[in-house]
Amino acid sequence: MSYYQAKKGLAPGTVLYTGRKKVEKVLIENIIYSQNDVAENKILNISELEYNKDSDAIQWVIITGLHDVGIIERTGAVFNIHNLVLEDILNTGQRPKVDFFDENIFIVLKNLHFNASKSEIVHEQVSIILGKNFVLCFVEKDDNLFFPIKERLRSSGSKMRNSGSDYLAYALMDIVIDHYFILLEKMEEHLDFYENKIINGEQSNVLNNVYKLKRENLSLNNAIWPLRELVAQLERAESGLIKKKNSIYFRDLYDHTIQVIERTGVYRDLLTALLELHLSGSGNRTNEVMKVLTVISTIFMPLTFIAGIYGMNFRNMPELFVPWAYFAVLGIMVVIAILMLIYFKRKKWL
Amino acid sequence: MSYYQAKKGLAPGTVLYTGRKKVEKVLIENIIYSQNDVAENKILNISELEYNKDSDAIQWVIITGLHDVGIIERTGAVFNIHNLVLEDILNTGQRPKVDFFDENIFIVLKNLHFNASKSEIVHEQVSIILGKNFVLCFVEKDDNLFFPIKERLRSSGSKMRNSGSDYLAYALMDIVIDHYFILLEKMEEHLDFYENKIINGEQSNVLNNVYKLKRENLSLNNAIWPLRELVAQLERAESGLIKKKNSIYFRDLYDHTIQVIERTGVYRDLLTALLELHLSGSGNRTNEVMKVLTVISTIFMPLTFIAGIYGMNFRNMPELFVPWAYFAVLGIMVVIAILMLIYFKRKKWL
Amino acid sequence: MSYYQAKKGLAPGTVLYTGRKKVEKVLIENIIYSQNDVAENKILNISELEYNKDSDAIQWVIITGLHDVGIIERTGAVFNIHNLVLEDILNTGQRPKVDFFDENIFIVLKNLHFNASKSEIVHEQVSIILGKNFVLCFVEKDDNLFFPIKERLRSSGSKMRNSGSDYLAYALMDIVIDHYFILLEKMEEHLDFYENKIINGEQSNVLNNVYKLKRENLSLNNAIWPLRELVAQLERAESGLIKKKNSIYFRDLYDHTIQVIERTGVYRDLLTALLELHLSGSGNRTNEVMKVLTVISTIFMPLTFIAGIYGMNFRNMPELFVPWAYFAVLGIMVVIAILMLIYFKRKKWL
Amino acid sequence: MSYYQAKKGLAPGTVLYTGRKKVEKVLIENIIYSQNDVAENKILNISELEYNKDSDAIQWVIITGLHDVGIIERTGAVFNIHNLVLEDILNTGQRPKVDFFDENIFIVLKNLHFNASKSEIVHEQVSIILGKNFVLCFVEKDDNLFFPIKERLRSSGSKMRNSGSDYLAYALMDIVIDHYFILLEKMEEHLDFYENKIINGEQSNVLNNVYKLKRENLSLNNAIWPLRELVAQLERAESGLIKKKNSIYFRDLYDHTIQVIERTGVYRDLLTALLELHLSGSGNRTNEVMKVLTVISTIFMPLTFIAGIYGMNFRNMPELFVPWAYFAVLGIMVVIAILMLIYFKRKKWL
Amino acid sequence: MSYYQAKKGLAPGTVLYTGRKKVEKVLIENIIYSQNDVAENKILNISELEYNKDSDAIQWVIITGLHDVGIIERTGAVFNIHNLVLEDILNTGQRPKVDFFDENIFIVLKNLHFNASKSEIVHEQVSIILGKNFVLCFVEKDDNLFFPIKERLRSSGSKMRNSGSDYLAYALMDIVIDHYFILLEKMEEHLDFYENKIINGEQSNVLNNVYKLKRENLSLNNAIWPLRELVAQLERAESGLIKKKNSIYFRDLYDHTIQVIERTGVYRDLLTALLELHLSGSGNRTNEVMKVLTVISTIFMPLTFIAGIYGMNFRNMPELFVPWAYFAVLGIMVVIAILMLIYFKRKKWL
Repeated sequence: MSYYQAKKGLAPGTVLYTGRKKVEKVLIENIIYSQNDVAENKILNISELEYNKDSDAIQWVIITGLHDVGIIERTGAVFNIHNLVLEDILNTGQRPKVDFFDENIFIVLKNLHFNASKSEIVHEQVSIILGKNFVLCFVEKDDNLFFPIKERLRSSGSKMRNSGSDYLAYALMDIVIDHYFILLEKMEEHLDFYENKIINGEQSNVLNNVYKLKRENLSLNNAIWPLRELVAQLERAESGLIKKKNSIYFRDLYDHTIQVIERTGVYRDLLTALLELHLSGSGNRTNEVMKVLTVISTIFMPLTFIAGIYGMNFRNMPELFVPWAYFAVLGIMVVIAILMLIYFKRKKWL
Repeated sequence: MSYYQAKKGLAPGTVLYTGRKKVEKVLIENIIYSQNDVAENKILNISELEYNKDSDAIQWVIITGLHDVGIIERTGAVFNIHNLVLEDILNTGQRPKVDFFDENIFIVLKNLHFNASKSEIVHEQVSIILGKNFVLCFVEKDDNLFFPIKERLRSSGSKMRNSGSDYLAYALMDIVIDHYFILLEKMEEHLDFYENKIINGEQSNVLNNVYKLKRENLSLNNAIWPLRELVAQLERAESGLIKKKNSIYFRDLYDHTIQVIERTGVYRDLLTALLELHLSGSGNRTNEVMKVLTVISTIFMPLTFIAGIYGMNFRNMPELFVPWAYFAVLGIMVVIAILMLIYFKRKKWL
Repeated sequence: MSYYQAKKGLAPGTVLYTGRKKVEKVLIENIIYSQNDVAENKILNISELEYNKDSDAIQWVIITGLHDVGIIERTGAVFNIHNLVLEDILNTGQRPKVDFFDENIFIVLKNLHFNASKSEIVHEQVSIILGKNFVLCFVEKDDNLFFPIKERLRSSGSKMRNSGSDYLAYALMDIVIDHYFILLEKMEEHLDFYENKIINGEQSNVLNNVYKLKRENLSLNNAIWPLRELVAQLERAESGLIKKKNSIYFRDLYDHTIQVIERTGVYRDLLTALLELHLSGSGNRTNEVMKVLTVISTIFMPLTFIAGIYGMNFRNMPELFVPWAYFAVLGIMVVIAILMLIYFKRKKWL
Repeated sequence: MSYYQAKKGLAPGTVLYTGRKKVEKVLIENIIYSQNDVAENKILNISELEYNKDSDAIQWVIITGLHDVGIIERTGAVFNIHNLVLEDILNTGQRPKVDFFDENIFIVLKNLHFNASKSEIVHEQVSIILGKNFVLCFVEKDDNLFFPIKERLRSSGSKMRNSGSDYLAYALMDIVIDHYFILLEKMEEHLDFYENKIINGEQSNVLNNVYKLKRENLSLNNAIWPLRELVAQLERAESGLIKKKNSIYFRDLYDHTIQVIERTGVYRDLLTALLELHLSGSGNRTNEVMKVLTVISTIFMPLTFIAGIYGMNFRNMPELFVPWAYFAVLGIMVVIAILMLIYFKRKKWL
Repeated sequence: MSYYQAKKGLAPGTVLYTGRKKVEKVLIENIIYSQNDVAENKILNISELEYNKDSDAIQWVIITGLHDVGIIERTGAVFNIHNLVLEDILNTGQRPKVDFFDENIFIVLKNLHFNASKSEIVHEQVSIILGKNFVLCFVEKDDNLFFPIKERLRSSGSKMRNSGSDYLAYALMDIVIDHYFILLEKMEEHLDFYENKIINGEQSNVLNNVYKLKRENLSLNNAIWPLRELVAQLERAESGLIKKKNSIYFRDLYDHTIQVIERTGVYRDLLTALLELHLSGSGNRTNEVMKVLTVISTIFMPLTFIAGIYGMNFRNMPELFVPWAYFAVLGIMVVIAILMLIYFKRKKWL
C-alpha cells in the first residue's frame, strides 16, 4: 500500500512508515566528540539514548533503518523534535527541503547512487537534524555513506573536531552532494556510449536505452533541483545555529549544487539532441533504402515489361521472325539500363 | 447553456448556478464542537441554520449540492458572506484561489479523483470559508470526502478538538491535497503500462491512450498550479484568522503542494519523452519494413527479368538450343541471389 | 495603406485613422445618470456635446465608429484628453493597456467575437476613459455590446445607479472579459471536433484546420496576455479615481483574466499535443501501408519468379516433361505462400 | 578582418572602425534651433564644429558615415564624450543599449529596413547622444531617415521647436521604432505568402524560404529584444536630462516597443507552426503516395502471378486445353481485382 | 581518476589536483609596476616569492601550470588566500563565479579557444585573485593569453600603468571575453557552411556535424551563462577593492557579456532551425523518391500484366489469332501509359 493511501485521513503528524524494510535491525550509532575526545558506541536499546542539553561536546546520532517507528518517536522525544518532522523523516517520498525551527534545523536530502546490476539510479532519503550541540542523521540503509567523516573525527587535530555542529552538518551535506558528481560522471559515460552508437548508425535497442537515460535524468533533476533553494536558505540563514564564519562553507556547497544542476541540464539537452539526431538519421536511412528500391524497380520494371511483350503468343508478331531482333532487343535493354543509371547518377541517388 | 452564456450581462454578484444537479437533495450538515463537546445534526430546512458570532465553540457547516441557490444565499446571509463569493461558489469552473476579507477567508479548491469506469479525472469544486469561529464547506456531491475528519472530531482527546477553526480549515485542505497523491499514483501506473507497451513495440491504440493521459495531465496541472500561490498566501497571511502557531501546518501543506506540482511536471516530461520514443520507434520500424521490401525486390526483380528474357518467343535465340543453357541460367540466378545476400549482409540490412 | 506607413514621420500625437469604416455614420450616445435619474439621448452634431466638470451625475458617452477624426478630436477637447491618447484610440492595432493620468485613466481592451460565417476571430478595439464623473467609450462598430449595462442603468434600484464612474468602467470591462469565455467555449468545441477526427484517423483537411486553430489561439493569446498586468494595475491603483471599496470588483476581474489566460494556455498545449498525435498517427499509418505492400510483394515476387522460370523456352528443361511437375510446382508455391504468411504472422505484420 | 580580431589586445576605449565604408565622404550636418530660429548647415571640415555649452538654443549634429575615426574623435572632444562611448559608436555590432553618464545619455539603436533586391533585412546602427542642449546622431549611411524631423523643425509653430533636446531624442527614437512596424508588415506578407503555399501543398522551395524567414526573425528579435529594457530605463530615468513632462512620450515609446516585441513573438510562433504543418503535411503526402503504390501492387501482383502460372510451359497442364478456361481465368482476375478494390475502399485507402 | 572520485571523503579545503599536466614545469611570472617603473622577472623557486602588503606598487603574479600543489599552497600562504579558494583553483571543472572576501576577490573564468586540428573547443580555467595592490592569475597552460597586457604595461604613458589593481583585473577579464567573440565567429562560419549544405540538399555526414556543433554550443553556453551574474556582481560590488570610477569598465564588460550570451542563444536557435530544416527536407526527399517509384510501378505493372495475359498458353485464346491483335494490344498499352502520365501530371507528381 502506498504511503498516501495509508495516510489518507490520519491526523497530520501521525508517524507512519510504509517503505520497504531495507535493513534487518535498526542500527543506532551514538558519537560524542569534543576538541579532545571521541566516544563512539552502538546503542542496542533505544531507551538508553540520552541527550544532555547543556553539554559542550557535540552528539552525533546516526539511525540506519526507518521501519521501527517506535525508535523514531523515542528519538524525537529525547531531542524534542516536532511530530511533523518525524512524519517527514518516515515519508521517504519527500523532496529535498529545509525547515527552520527555533531549536533546530531539519534538512532532507537524497543520496543517489547507481546500482550497476539493475542499471538504475537508487534514491535513498537522508534526513539531518541540526541542533545547538547535536546532529541527528536518519538513513534508510547501511552503505557506509558517512565513513570518511567518522575517520576524520577520529584524528584529533582535524578541523571537524574543532568546529561546531553546523560544520558537521555541512560535511554531511557535502559528502552527499559530492556523490552526485560521481553519478553524473557515470551517466555521461553512458551517454557517450549511446552517442557513439547513434553516430555510427547502429540501431539495436539504442532508442529504449536513451529513453531510459532520459527517464533517469528526469528523476535525478527532480531530486537535485530543490537543492539550490535549500542550500541558499542555509547560506543566508540568520538562525543562530549556523555560525557566520562557517557560511563560506555553505557558499561553497551552493556553488557545487549549481554546478550539479547545470550539468544535469546540459546532459538533458544532449539527450534531446541525441534523440533528434537519431530521428533525423532514421529518416535519412529510410531515404537511402527507398532510393535503392526505386532505382532497382525503375531499371527492371521497363526491362521486364519489354521481355513480357515478346513473350506474348500472338500469331502475327513480325519482330519475332527477324533473325537479329533478339539481339536488337537485348541491346535496347542494355541502353535503357545505362540511361537509367546515368539519370540516377545525376540525381545523386547512386 | 454554459455558465458564461447564462451570466452574460447580469450584474456582477448575481448568484447563479448552471452546473448539473449532482445530488437529489441538498444536504446540510451542522457540526458544533468545542474541547468538550461535539454536536452533529442535519438541517432539513435552511431557515433553521443559525450562527452565534460570540460562541467559543466552532461551527462547521457542510453543504453538499449547489443547485439550490436559495440555500446558498441564505447561508451567505447568516454568516455575512459577500455576494461575489457566493457567485464564485456556484461557478464551478473557478480556478483554485484564496481571497482575504476582513471577517473571513474564502478558499476554492478542486477535489480530483479518478473515475475508473469512464477512465477520466473528475473535478469537483470544494469551497471553504474560514471565519473566526466557523468553517463553511460547499461541495458538489456526496462522496464522504471529509469522513475521516468527522471521525477525528468525535474522539475527545484529538488535536482537532483542541485547535481553532484555522486548524480545521487546514485539515480539510490537507485531505484534498492528499487525494492528489493517490491520483498521481494511479496516473503513473497508467504511464508505466503504456511505456511498457511502447518499449515492446506494441502499437495497438497506444498513441490515443498516451494522448489521453497527456490531456488529463494538462487538466490536472491546471487545477494544481494555482495551489502553490494559494497555500503560500495562507502561510504568509497576516490575517488574525490564522494563528501563528498553526503556520507550520500550512508550511507543511505548501511542501506537499510543491511536491504534487513537481511530480505532475516530471510526469508531463515523461509523457513527452514517451511520445518521442514512439515516434522514433515508428520511424525505425518503417525503416525495417522498407529494408525487407527492398531486399526482396532487389533479389527477385533481376531474376524475374532473366526468366522473362528466356520466355521471349523470338525465333532466333541461340541460347535456347544449347542443352546445358537452362542449367547455366539457373546457376547464374543462384549466384546473383547469393551475391545480393552478401551485399545486404554487409550493408547490415539483414 | 497601413497605419504605420501613413504615420511615418508625422509628429507624435497626430490624430490619424487608417482603419476601415465599419459604420456608416458615427453614433454618439450620451447617457447621464444619478441615483434618481437617467437621461439617454443621441447626439447628432458633435458640437452639442457638453461636459459639466462639477456635476454630481455621471456622464457616459459611447462613440461608435472611429473614422470621423473631427468627432474624436472634439470629444478630446471637451473632456480634456491628451493627444497621445486620441492617437491611441484611433490606432486600432493597439495592445490592451492602461495609462494613468492625473485626471483620468485610459484603458484599451479588445472585444473578441467569433464570426461564424468566415469562421475567424474578429478583433474590435474598445477604448475606455474613466474620469471623476464621466466614462467615455470608443468602439469600432455597433454590436450592442453594452446593451445589458444600459438595461441595468434603467432600473433605478440597481447597484450601478448607486455607484460611481469606476463601477461603470468595471462593468464595461467585465462584459468584455465575459465574452472571452464564450469565445473560448466555441474554440474548445472546434478543438474537440478535430480531436475526434484525428483519434479516428480521419485525415481530410484536419491538419489545415488545426493549424488555423493554432493561429487563432496565438492571436487570442496576444490580445489576452497583457490583460493580466492591466487589471492588476487597476486593482493596485492608488489613483483617487478608483474607490477602495470597489477594488474587490477589480480583484474579481483579475481572477477572471487569469482564468482566461490559463485556459488559453491549456488550449494551446492541447493543440500542440494534437499535432503530435496526428504526426505520430500518420507515421503509424505509413507503417501499416508499408507492411501490406511488403507482405504482398514478399509473397508474390518469389512465386511469380518461379512461374517465370517455367515460362522460359529452353529446349532442354527436363522438368517440363514430368507429368506431375506442374502440380508439384503449384504445391511448392502454396507451401512458400503459407510459410511466408506464418513468418509475417510471427513478426506481427498481419 | 573582424572587429574583435582587430581589437584583440588593444586597450579598452581605443577608437577603431573595421566596418565597410558605406558613404564616400562623411557628412556632418549641424542644426541649431530655438523657439524662433533654425539654422541648418553642412560642416565640411570637422575643425569648424563648435559647441556652446551655455547656449539656450539646441544643437543637433548628424554624422553620416563612420569610417573616418578622426571625425568621431574630434566630435567626442568637442562635446566631451567618454572614449568607451566612441568605441561603442564605431563597433557596429553593438546591441541596443542605453548608458547614463553625468552629462549625457548614450543610446544605441538599430535601424532595420528590408532590402527588397537582396530580400534580406539590413541592420544599420544609430547612435544617439543626448546632452543638456545638444543631440548627436551617428548613422552608417545616408538614407534620409530623419528627414521628417528636419521638416517638422522647419515649421516654427511645431511642438519640436518648443521642446527641449529630450523631445528631439524621443522623436528620433520614435521614427526608428516606427520603421519596425513597416518591416514587420513586410515580413507578415511573406509569411502569408508561404503559408498559403504550404496549405495548398505546394512544395517547391517553400522550406528553404521559411527557414530564411526564421533566420531573419531571429536576427530581428535579437535587435528588438533589448529595446524593452532600454526604453523602460529612459522612462524611469531620474537623470535631469529627461524632463518629467516628457516622460509620457517615453511611456508611449515603451508601449510601441512592447507591441513590436510581441508581434515578433507571434510571428516566430507562426513560423514554427508553419514548419510543423509542412512536416505533418509532408508525412501525409508520403502516406497518400504509399497508398497508391500499395493499391496498385496489391491488385496487379496476384493477377500477374496468375498470368505467369498459365504462361508456364509444362507439357501436362490440363487447364490449358479446356476451351473456356481462358475466359474463366480472365473472369477470376476481374473478380479478384474487384474484391481488392472493395477491400481498399473499406480501408479508406481510395 | 576523476576529481570527485579522488576528493570523495577528503576534508573540504584539501588542495588536490587531478587534471592532466599541461606544461612541463610550472612557470611563475612576477610583475611589479607603478606609474614610473615596471619590473618583470621569472621566479624559479617558489620560496623566493614575496609580497609587501604596504607597497604602493602593484604586484601581478602569473602562475602557469597547476600540477604542482606545493606552489599553489605556498602562493596562497604568501598572499593570505583561503584554502577553499585554492581548492577551487585546482578543480578545473569549476563554473565561472566570483567570491567576495574581506581582503580579496576571487574570480574564475573559462578561456575558450578553438583547436582547429581536433576541431573542438578547448576549455582552460583562468583564476584571478584581486587584492588591494596585487593580482594573481592561475592558468593551465602557456598560450600567451595575457601578452597584449604585458605589452601595454611596458609603455609608461598607458592608462594601465596609472590605474589600480582593479583596472588590471578588468583588463584580464576583457581579454578573456573578447576571445569569445572570435570563437563565436568561427562557430558561425561552421554553421554557415553546414547551412549551405543542407539548403542544397547535400546529406553526406551533415547531421553528425550539426549535432557536434550543437554539443559544442551547449558546452559554450554552459561556460558563458554564469558570466552575466558574475560581471553584474563585480559592477555592483560595494567592495573597496573596485574603485567607483572604474565601474564604467565593468559596465562595458557586462554589455559584452550580454552580447556573447545573446549571440550564443541565436546560434542555438539557428542550429535547432537547421535540424528542423534537415528533417523536413529529408521528409520531402523521401516523398520525391516515393513518387518516382509509384509512377514507375503504376505505369508498368498494368502493362506487364497485359503482356502476361497474352503470354498464357491456353489453347483457346481467340485474340491470339487475330492478325492485328498484337498491334492493337501495343496501342492499348501506349494509351494506358499516356493516360497514366496525364493523371500523374495533374496530381503534380511529375
